[in-house]
Amino acid sequence: MNTINNYIEHTLLKPDAKEEGILKLIHEAEENKFFGICINPCYVQFAKNNMSSKDIKLVTVVNFPLASNTIDTILFQTEEALKNGADEIDTVINISALKDKNYSKVISDIKKTKDVCRDNNLKVILETDLLSSTEIVEASKCATEGGANFVKTSTGFVKGGVGAKVEDVKLMYDTVKSFGLGVKASGGIKNYASAVELIKAGAVRLGTSSGVDIILGEKQYV
Amino acid sequence: MNTINNYIEHTLLKPDAKEEGILKLIHEAEENKFFGICINPCYVQFAKNNMSSKDIKLVTVVNFPLASNTIDTILFQTEEALKNGADEIDTVINISALKDKNYSKVISDIKKTKDVCRDNNLKVILETDLLSSTEIVEASKCATEGGANFVKTSTGFVKGGVGAKVEDVKLMYDTVKSFGLGVKASGGIKNYASAVELIKAGAVRLGTSSGVDIILGEKQYV
Repeated sequence: MNTINNYIEHTLLKPDAKEEGILKLIHEAEENKFFGICINPCYVQFAKNNMSSKDIKLVTVVNFPLASNTIDTILFQTEEALKNGADEIDTVINISALKDKNYSKVISDIKKTKDVCRDNNLKVILETDLLSSTEIVEASKCATEGGANFVKTSTGFVKGGVGAKVEDVKLMYDTVKSFGLGVKASGGIKNYASAVELIKAGAVRLGTSSGVDIILGEKQYV
Repeated sequence: MNTINNYIEHTLLKPDAKEEGILKLIHEAEENKFFGICINPCYVQFAKNNMSSKDIKLVTVVNFPLASNTIDTILFQTEEALKNGADEIDTVINISALKDKNYSKVISDIKKTKDVCRDNNLKVILETDLLSSTEIVEASKCATEGGANFVKTSTGFVKGGVGAKVEDVKLMYDTVKSFGLGVKASGGIKNYASAVELIKAGAVRLGTSSGVDIILGEKQYV
């Protein structure tokens, strides 16, 4: 296993995040050699202008966190984010269509978004807190069919939700592994021990606002 | 005071809302003669096609709930929502700029959004759970300056938030009343008694998913 910093997308998506918070996030990501940062679209351009290391990826979110946008808005957001400097796009799956078993709609939305992303990675957030095991499998299949690069567990914004669970990551990993997609665990990852469990379950990326704490935890184990 | 149905924007903004939930919401709104329904942008066109009463207003949300979008995305969302049949737009204020006391940016975003709305009402959500009393007053002034028609308390999606509070509504009402803006209370309004308290404090609209319960509560008082 890589050292854990390589897995971490250092995340700040709070509605009251300020520019100084984004600068702190970038600084911590560069200092700890995290894989990337994950921020809201309104800060992509600002972050791009303030990142000195080209090794840190800039990840942003669209159709987030409520899966409430039309496909036209999703595509507009995606295009704008890439233009502003985003390297990767995390989008929320069409939860309603998924629950209605309207898989062709779910896949179509993902395909259209991936077309805009071209070579940039597209991750599809399943929002596992709201799904049954069967729905998690179906959602993972839709993401695969739609050409996504990753499936991701959670937005971190479900009321009463727990976020990334080991059994959900396993289920996602088992569904997508033979198709070459990765799994991003996100939501509620607070410490080194739970990070390691999620990686063992199949996650190759961790979306967390506790990146620095996780690194401190790792040092205690070495 | 009007009967309470005239105050209610019957609300469904859950990420896993389905078409059948939107149809139920419309049916309840028409049956109870609510002021309107408030739904996510992805359902505006569907709702418009399924509303039989022209007396029920169709309200939707943009830049919601995290205030995370660029102004270009906000304007795109707004234009699209109006084209799809929305009567009113509820947008989340630029919380970060507000907290940075960058009021010209806050006002500019509201003005641009109102320009797209033209004669359609624009409500500005302050997200009071995240603001101090001083910030609530400043935010209300910015909304006034930006040409908004209403100030609104809450998205209902703040972690650990309580939503509409009587003292916040009073503060907003006192700040905007002489300029002709209305106040919409939203978030956590569950019963008739709290609805009445918020109306007494100055609210002329109530955003709530408990509209039917509130009407049942009113009947017990008559």
